[in-house]
Amino acid sequence: MEIERKYLISELPSNLEDYPVRSIQQGYLNRDPVIRIRREDSNFILTYKSSGLMIREEVNLPLNAQSYESLREKIDGKLITKKRYLIPYKQYTIELDVFSGELAPLILAEVEFPTAEEAENFTPPSWFGEDVTFDGRYHNSYLSK
Amino acid sequence: MEIERKYLISELPSNLEDYPVRSIQQGYLNRDPVIRIRREDSNFILTYKSSGLMIREEVNLPLNAQSYESLREKIDGKLITKKRYLIPYKQYTIELDVFSGELAPLILAEVEFPTAEEAENFTPPSWFGEDVTFDGRYHNSYLSK
Repeated sequence: MEIERKYLISELPSNLEDYPVRSIQQGYLNRDPVIRIRREDSNFILTYKSSGLMIREEVNLPLNAQSYESLREKIDGKLITKKRYLIPYKQYTIELDVFSGELAPLILAEVEFPTAEEAENFTPPSWFGEDVTFDGRYHNSYLSK
Repeated sequence: MEIERKYLISELPSNLEDYPVRSIQQGYLNRDPVIRIRREDSNFILTYKSSGLMIREEVNLPLNAQSYESLREKIDGKLITKKRYLIPYKQYTIELDVFSGELAPLILAEVEFPTAEEAENFTPPSWFGEDVTFDGRYHNSYLSK
């Protein structure tokens, strides 16, 4: 089960380069349910997510470089490229996605929670913008269209 | 974990129509790892299997009719169609696959086991033919080529 909230970001933290960062490339074989392929640095992953906005079932399965490249030929819409910074905040980790390519200058922050209650009670840091958790347009599967 | 043995069949049991049967249609988005879509009567399933012949990790995830039909446009090679009969045998269930279309008159039997030891000690019924467990040509992913 994946429980997360998502926010628009207009201003980046000034010390961004202090945090771990990953280069991500991803595309969608299907949108409902989500069947996604992702390259994260040198890791290749197939992800399945059931329908839903705040709460979704998620399964991650390993791919190799060859299968990733072959499946990349089959995606719908555009390949998404972004840098993901991992920023500790209270007991959570903020995943800050800085998009490149056609989606720039979009920046989104996601926070995952162990329970729906924690997700509902979450107070975001002051530099977070609009809460878009329930706005399907900011799902990466929609952004890839 | 999926542990199974596979056999060629040349002669069908005479009472075949006494057993439950399912109509199966399936195709492969990728072969290594296996990423398969399957329609089984009115159920739609995405399956992931890691590499291997007798023992493989297997994950099954639900699809809907629309996603199945969309993914079917993306398969490599041919769509496989077959009837699967479920035949009780000792404490096991024989899955007897009678292929139609280009693969007819191929017939294969598969038996799944809870442990590798039981798989190794299995004595097949007399009507089973050649053991092709370790012959990759009889994997459905290969047959779809």
